[in-house]
Amino acid sequence: MIEPHTLREDAVAIFRAALAAANARDAVKRHLQRSEVQIRLENTRFTLTRMNRVFVVAVGKAAPQMAEVIEQRIGDYFTSGLVVTKHGHAASYSGKCKVIEASHPVPGEDSLRAGQAVVSLLDDLTAKDFLVVAVSGGASSLLCAPVEGVSLADKQQTTALLLRAGADIYELNAVRKHLSLLKGGNLAALAYPCPILSLLLSDVVGDPLDVIGSGLTAPDQSTFAEAIRVLSNRFVWETVPATVRDHLERGARGEVNETPKPGDTLFANVTNAIVGNSRQALEAAAEEAKRRGYRPLILSSRIQGEAREAARFHAEILWETITSGHPVRPPACLLSGGETTVNVRGNGKGGRNQEFALATAVALAGAPNIMCLSAGTDGTDGPTDAAGALVNGETIARARKLGLSAEQALVQNDSYPFFDALGDLLKTGPTGTNVMDVNIMLVG
Amino acid sequence: MIEPHTLREDAVAIFRAALAAANARDAVKRHLQRSEVQIRLENTRFTLTRMNRVFVVAVGKAAPQMAEVIEQRIGDYFTSGLVVTKHGHAASYSGKCKVIEASHPVPGEDSLRAGQAVVSLLDDLTAKDFLVVAVSGGASSLLCAPVEGVSLADKQQTTALLLRAGADIYELNAVRKHLSLLKGGNLAALAYPCPILSLLLSDVVGDPLDVIGSGLTAPDQSTFAEAIRVLSNRFVWETVPATVRDHLERGARGEVNETPKPGDTLFANVTNAIVGNSRQALEAAAEEAKRRGYRPLILSSRIQGEAREAARFHAEILWETITSGHPVRPPACLLSGGETTVNVRGNGKGGRNQEFALATAVALAGAPNIMCLSAGTDGTDGPTDAAGALVNGETIARARKLGLSAEQALVQNDSYPFFDALGDLLKTGPTGTNVMDVNIMLVG
Repeated sequence: MIEPHTLREDAVAIFRAALAAANARDAVKRHLQRSEVQIRLENTRFTLTRMNRVFVVAVGKAAPQMAEVIEQRIGDYFTSGLVVTKHGHAASYSGKCKVIEASHPVPGEDSLRAGQAVVSLLDDLTAKDFLVVAVSGGASSLLCAPVEGVSLADKQQTTALLLRAGADIYELNAVRKHLSLLKGGNLAALAYPCPILSLLLSDVVGDPLDVIGSGLTAPDQSTFAEAIRVLSNRFVWETVPATVRDHLERGARGEVNETPKPGDTLFANVTNAIVGNSRQALEAAAEEAKRRGYRPLILSSRIQGEAREAARFHAEILWETITSGHPVRPPACLLSGGETTVNVRGNGKGGRNQEFALATAVALAGAPNIMCLSAGTDGTDGPTDAAGALVNGETIARARKLGLSAEQALVQNDSYPFFDALGDLLKTGPTGTNVMDVNIMLVG
Repeated sequence: MIEPHTLREDAVAIFRAALAAANARDAVKRHLQRSEVQIRLENTRFTLTRMNRVFVVAVGKAAPQMAEVIEQRIGDYFTSGLVVTKHGHAASYSGKCKVIEASHPVPGEDSLRAGQAVVSLLDDLTAKDFLVVAVSGGASSLLCAPVEGVSLADKQQTTALLLRAGADIYELNAVRKHLSLLKGGNLAALAYPCPILSLLLSDVVGDPLDVIGSGLTAPDQSTFAEAIRVLSNRFVWETVPATVRDHLERGARGEVNETPKPGDTLFANVTNAIVGNSRQALEAAAEEAKRRGYRPLILSSRIQGEAREAARFHAEILWETITSGHPVRPPACLLSGGETTVNVRGNGKGGRNQEFALATAVALAGAPNIMCLSAGTDGTDGPTDAAGALVNGETIARARKLGLSAEQALVQNDSYPFFDALGDLLKTGPTGTNVMDVNIMLVG
């Protein structure tokens, strides 16, 4: 039997191990090696002396950290570069790239300026140059480069209409990629024939290259025709701005270049590499759990769906662990990652991880000798200053004593005040990474 | 790499192993031993020579099979008994009990007659007699014995109002137990002071004694006051029949006996034993999987919630298995049990297992070298003649070739015709057991 206090300490330490493994700086360091005049990514080598100029474009919330390591690896061969990140995130950046801070999660005029700056940088690249791209969470909204004739407002209105009509991420992306100068592989097309090394810190389930950062340097499967079909199927074709309809129709008629497709020769020059993702973080967490005496089991790095439904499923497995020792015998550490969603119905304050934790607490009320932690690896859970929360079998009873109802908090999507009152919020501050969320469930 | 054909054969064989382990006849045989003049259940012994008369009351869809084994164990000491089962289920019964066939899942007049017969049998039991009770799925509706003054119609109306008001199973049971002569431990109270051995084939997640068969021989935690509170909280107190209000109020005033509570001395004479449940079935399935070369992993025997949501989480774990070897390295067999629900929105034909399989097929479209089987252990999935269905990574593509849309079938809750057309329904006929559902997911 492990003491509750120790379980809590262990859960936090296991989460810290996940964060350390996913740290943007360390992830790039680990993957990008420098030996004499070469930089090396696993078996791929890039000889710097053969290059005329070397450029860096780092986009995302972890762009400053990723850029710093890349610049350090490139050393004197560095020509110039851009760091596009969220307001306030570049404060400690000490590299040589030009910094543009932009809006997140809703793109603004500053995202347009950032998009413009990237397009300009790509303008005169040659086959003798070299471009290192770094992508981390938030890249899609930080970087905005609408095609000619379409305004930022037009793009935003189109996205809003699609979201309201229930479009999924694949439908959204099919449309957005065909309204962008950079997304859907267009960045790689603009940089052609310059060789590209693209380092990706994945904040998307399953690490699909064409979805991370909207696939700046990856082949795109979708077409102009599909983008039109999506808008029609969702019954918003007539309501999107005329400029959008016009551009997509011209594209479908072949008057505008398609996004580059898989097999396109331009990708012969492009190396895309995942430098950090949910699985790496979970595997590091599993290692730390083992070190602390738990039997670790990684359930999945692909957890999605409604937070409270996902929590229920985790609880069903945890109850089994407690009562029968399946799927793993205690002391056990169940791990999962991914990104759930919250279908907001109430007016409360919270985030998907806090809501996951709250639903877990309800489902595990009374369970002996456990501790569960759910938190975002970027340190920010929804519009709150917490990364997530910690719960165990006594959480609900402790809350009741304070006059708090977990059921009510769930109905109101009001998990933050609930955990704030209990002192069970987990606050990390900005972590320098984002590989989605981590759930840690200990059975002592 | 295991061939698709073999994967399918293996999945079915693993399901058969689960059925064999849960078989009502075998479950009773395994748990109830006979040695000379004693029958023995693990460490509890009942000496038949000390008993005046020995009675059997078997209720549920597997009542005939359970009664036959019990009668065989009791042998010449058998006095008389009742088998209450679903219409058509007693055809091959060869024992000595009186058989009453009743309606399922909606109780009818025949359920009332069955209830009356059980109440009569219990009437003159003494401390020198012995009663063996056997409970299996369906007992609650097969056996109906409303308290005096309350009619079957009154009870049904009350249940219907509560269901429409969104009451959960605990709320429903609190009310129903307080309107019944047998449920909520009242059977044990009526039989008192006769010793009781109650053998339960669990069709409820977590095997709660007070929920299986509505807890005929188990202590009840709920009270008359709580039953009233449930009706008030659900705003149906004014609309339930006056006879129901009247009985509950008399109970709350202490004019009617409360259901027997935990710690009540009468339970000193009662032995409740789970003879079969989901976990046993899953463990047998795991054994068979191992024998066939898979690494088995039991995720949980407690899967509940909306079928398509549960399917999504299983698929998320299966994708992880395929891509990273977590939580178990292929060749792998993931197993789970429990009972999901389907919030019916369409007009189609199907069952929760077929719908689970359909959602699994969508989530696993394109996955290589897998096979998933979802089926009810009673052989009946919803109002269909199938137990469930089989799917793999090609199911969706094969369906498309036949002009079938899985998404459309999901929207319409129309899984049966979908799998019927594909030839992927699993049909077993009645299995002689019910320990809820089993999900088997193979990665070759």
